[in-house]
Amino acid sequence: MEQNTFGVVGGDQRQAALAESIAADGYTVYALGFDRMEFGNGVKKTEDLDELLRHCAQIIFPLPVTTDGKTLNMPYSVQKIVLDDLFAEKLSGKRVFGGMMGKLYKTSELWDELETHDYFTREELAVKNAILTAEGAVEIAMREYPGTISGARCLVAGFGRIGKALSLILRGLHAEVTASARNRADLAWIEVFGCRAVHTDAIFESGQYDLIFNTIPARIFSRKELAKAQRGTILIDLASAPGGIDFEAAAKLPVHAVQALSLPGRAAPKAAAEIIKSTIYNMMEE
Amino acid sequence: MEQNTFGVVGGDQRQAALAESIAADGYTVYALGFDRMEFGNGVKKTEDLDELLRHCAQIIFPLPVTTDGKTLNMPYSVQKIVLDDLFAEKLSGKRVFGGMMGKLYKTSELWDELETHDYFTREELAVKNAILTAEGAVEIAMREYPGTISGARCLVAGFGRIGKALSLILRGLHAEVTASARNRADLAWIEVFGCRAVHTDAIFESGQYDLIFNTIPARIFSRKELAKAQRGTILIDLASAPGGIDFEAAAKLPVHAVQALSLPGRAAPKAAAEIIKSTIYNMMEE
Amino acid sequence: MEQNTFGVVGGDQRQAALAESIAADGYTVYALGFDRMEFGNGVKKTEDLDELLRHCAQIIFPLPVTTDGKTLNMPYSVQKIVLDDLFAEKLSGKRVFGGMMGKLYKTSELWDELETHDYFTREELAVKNAILTAEGAVEIAMREYPGTISGARCLVAGFGRIGKALSLILRGLHAEVTASARNRADLAWIEVFGCRAVHTDAIFESGQYDLIFNTIPARIFSRKELAKAQRGTILIDLASAPGGIDFEAAAKLPVHAVQALSLPGRAAPKAAAEIIKSTIYNMMEE
Amino acid sequence: MEQNTFGVVGGDQRQAALAESIAADGYTVYALGFDRMEFGNGVKKTEDLDELLRHCAQIIFPLPVTTDGKTLNMPYSVQKIVLDDLFAEKLSGKRVFGGMMGKLYKTSELWDELETHDYFTREELAVKNAILTAEGAVEIAMREYPGTISGARCLVAGFGRIGKALSLILRGLHAEVTASARNRADLAWIEVFGCRAVHTDAIFESGQYDLIFNTIPARIFSRKELAKAQRGTILIDLASAPGGIDFEAAAKLPVHAVQALSLPGRAAPKAAAEIIKSTIYNMMEE
Repeated sequence: MEQNTFGVVGGDQRQAALAESIAADGYTVYALGFDRMEFGNGVKKTEDLDELLRHCAQIIFPLPVTTDGKTLNMPYSVQKIVLDDLFAEKLSGKRVFGGMMGKLYKTSELWDELETHDYFTREELAVKNAILTAEGAVEIAMREYPGTISGARCLVAGFGRIGKALSLILRGLHAEVTASARNRADLAWIEVFGCRAVHTDAIFESGQYDLIFNTIPARIFSRKELAKAQRGTILIDLASAPGGIDFEAAAKLPVHAVQALSLPGRAAPKAAAEIIKSTIYNMMEE
Repeated sequence: MEQNTFGVVGGDQRQAALAESIAADGYTVYALGFDRMEFGNGVKKTEDLDELLRHCAQIIFPLPVTTDGKTLNMPYSVQKIVLDDLFAEKLSGKRVFGGMMGKLYKTSELWDELETHDYFTREELAVKNAILTAEGAVEIAMREYPGTISGARCLVAGFGRIGKALSLILRGLHAEVTASARNRADLAWIEVFGCRAVHTDAIFESGQYDLIFNTIPARIFSRKELAKAQRGTILIDLASAPGGIDFEAAAKLPVHAVQALSLPGRAAPKAAAEIIKSTIYNMMEE
Repeated sequence: MEQNTFGVVGGDQRQAALAESIAADGYTVYALGFDRMEFGNGVKKTEDLDELLRHCAQIIFPLPVTTDGKTLNMPYSVQKIVLDDLFAEKLSGKRVFGGMMGKLYKTSELWDELETHDYFTREELAVKNAILTAEGAVEIAMREYPGTISGARCLVAGFGRIGKALSLILRGLHAEVTASARNRADLAWIEVFGCRAVHTDAIFESGQYDLIFNTIPARIFSRKELAKAQRGTILIDLASAPGGIDFEAAAKLPVHAVQALSLPGRAAPKAAAEIIKSTIYNMMEE
Repeated sequence: MEQNTFGVVGGDQRQAALAESIAADGYTVYALGFDRMEFGNGVKKTEDLDELLRHCAQIIFPLPVTTDGKTLNMPYSVQKIVLDDLFAEKLSGKRVFGGMMGKLYKTSELWDELETHDYFTREELAVKNAILTAEGAVEIAMREYPGTISGARCLVAGFGRIGKALSLILRGLHAEVTASARNRADLAWIEVFGCRAVHTDAIFESGQYDLIFNTIPARIFSRKELAKAQRGTILIDLASAPGGIDFEAAAKLPVHAVQALSLPGRAAPKAAAEIIKSTIYNMMEE
């Protein structure tokens, strides 16, 4: 068994694209858990975990590895892989990569002794995912907003990774971009990006917006705050659940609130796969 | 009857938005042909053409005024308005605005003597519509392309109004933009826009593309030319029918071709309405 | 004598750079009129016009060919070349390129029978020169304006070639860009470029500016108009003489007006040479 | 004596602009140390320190407060203010702002008991100064480079504050921008900014550059590294002394290296003053 043989086990379109992309780099790749999918040249599809493990030194699990804490996240297969001591034992001697490994570790104490790497904790993955999320947000905005992004008054609440990426491309689309932050250094950065800066506690004090993108995982857009928005404002929540918008309150007001979940993977599986791949390669080099 | 009273007769969401927008400017507006729609404050909905004509000095028809050459384009109504001498006679003394009026003129000789204005022939409308079409094209690209626009190698074939608008916003989205043109001045303009220029006859000679946007209303992407594209290339045809892509040939090749029709109106009715409105206001001033 | 041998006769740094650039493409190049300059490999420097003509089929004169109408524009040489019948006769059988050839033609009737090409009349040269002029204008603005271009309220008067190029890069520098035009289509284009549009007759009606760039060759900024500008406004005139600013009036007002002449050549001789070269190559192909 | 009375003591054009800007906000401002300058309305010029201290609660020293460690940095005055116990004593009860206060503190132990604030340590000042430095660098590049920034291959070495600001505006000027960094997260950020990323240890491995901007305060461009640059490359060093370029080595190679010092203050005194002012206001609020 060579070192650079990869087994992609479970996951959705992202992981399928990941298998193909690694194969295109010239490596041997086995894929398990993709009943309904066909792969291009180079990816060996199998339903036999033992066969896959026999050939592969590097094992790649999806993001998240598991949703129920009991079986592997494998939505494209009728097969189920139970996460238990037996499964962990089989992985012994392998280098295991996965996203959000916490729940997996709880399924067996054996995981403590195996070599595992969580690509979801890597900063470079989070940064690159911000581009995916930002583009996904723009796509939603284009679909929901009856005007053009060009010339639209956009607010980006929060100036973290997604806020930065989103501000840049909204500006590139010729929107009037205001971004919000709380600390003075971030407010200064917003100006470096060519956008207007407002304090997150005073979003509506300096004007109204056609489109509001929330990236802050805290209830910024409460009933009281939403009531300040003008009729027709579209709010897109990019923060992970429970998000930053009071959707119940929004439903009773003349605004339109949209929850945008799992953007990175859904909107651009191929790009998401490239990001995971380069992150895994980085981890292998280190 | 005051001068600035508007009757919006027929059309789709764009015309409905147009009626609301004119009413929001403080003018009296009557709307006919929108059975299933509700209007905000200010628009008086009616099903009685004579009542509308009694009150309105300015009459606005949709774009196009008619599709069959016999009845008014009025897809949101069960009523039909027949285009004949009687209809034309009723419009006598009014100022009539519409888009693509050619077929209307053929329905009665009386039109020769009426005051009519075709807003679709106006350059400023065509230019502003280019933004709508460009954003609609980007939305399609985001939906169809499994990667991100950021970093994607994009070709814009043709550097007319839509080509220019599209090149600018693709660049703003951080794509690698190449635009094609035939004459040397346009090739120079492409560089002013910060993009790479290629001659339209040599599109694939200097590289491959992830996304190709055609804006040229001529069969540029013939079977022979399509065969040069790499596997997975996505082609989006923005040229009016019959378009510039040989879709039959594309279906047999490992590329993905998409026809994008009627982009301006469908993707952003509110923005389309604003453009028609400002064009009509311009014509009224002149 | 081969076809592709070039004689560069007269001119300033641009023409010297042009000689070097053509030589770098692998052609034989003779240069005359550059006493004080040294050339890199490949350019043969000579002071003997007859020798140059013996070797060269393509003769390139500067832009402009002559300033006084009597001698060749040759500021880097102590030699003078008189423009008369004798000189024209010597050029017989050559392909002669030059910029602004009008005054040359008046020096001898023989020019009517010679093959001459004026590269200054070419649209692609004018378009590419617009980038040079726009960057030169930005350099002046950076030097003269005590604030940053980022965030500065900039007006670009006129939306021709230079106005377009300048609007784009000022926007890229994160200025707040307003551009002015007179016809409605141009006003629409300004929005496509992501800038605010104002009518040229109402420049100060919608606000004040930190920096004003004039590109219109007509007295737009008269005493009356200048009086509307706020204290400290900087005006940069890019229009060819006599320009669009009343400098006498400006001197008496609390504004600062700067005349920016001959920007293309002075600010970026190498780039100017590249533009002339590609234009000449284009003309040779046609 | 009111709280909001400001005494600006010493400094160059920046501090003079600062005095005027604070006065324009409606506050009483005294300025000392500007013999040769005239102020607009509102700034009271004085040469009497005691008078100034009698009226002002907030005292603003320049950046740096002192260069020699013995006297106040006061280049625009023939007067000298000696920094000793007596001077410190006079400042008792005042709120003192200054930039780079370290050397001042060493002039008297009394400073330990006074209320002092160093605005140069503030992150928001450093971020906003990055815009000034970036624009100053572009101005130098425009002056030194014989081509246009548009289309030029630019390398920005280092992706800190200045590297980020500079990459953005070079991209806005349509340059081909590559930025370098060492850690993988920064390399990912470079892509978010729409630029090409290279590792700082492999700058010349993926191509050549027309313009190189160094922002790293370490000897990145050693003799060995400089030898890899192509003929004619222009290097602009923005890192604080001793900088990142081996200027001696550069002088012997066919490249052109430029040291750009004190950019923020010199290039845009008015903007530098605005930044200092808003930082002082921030500190007063906290």
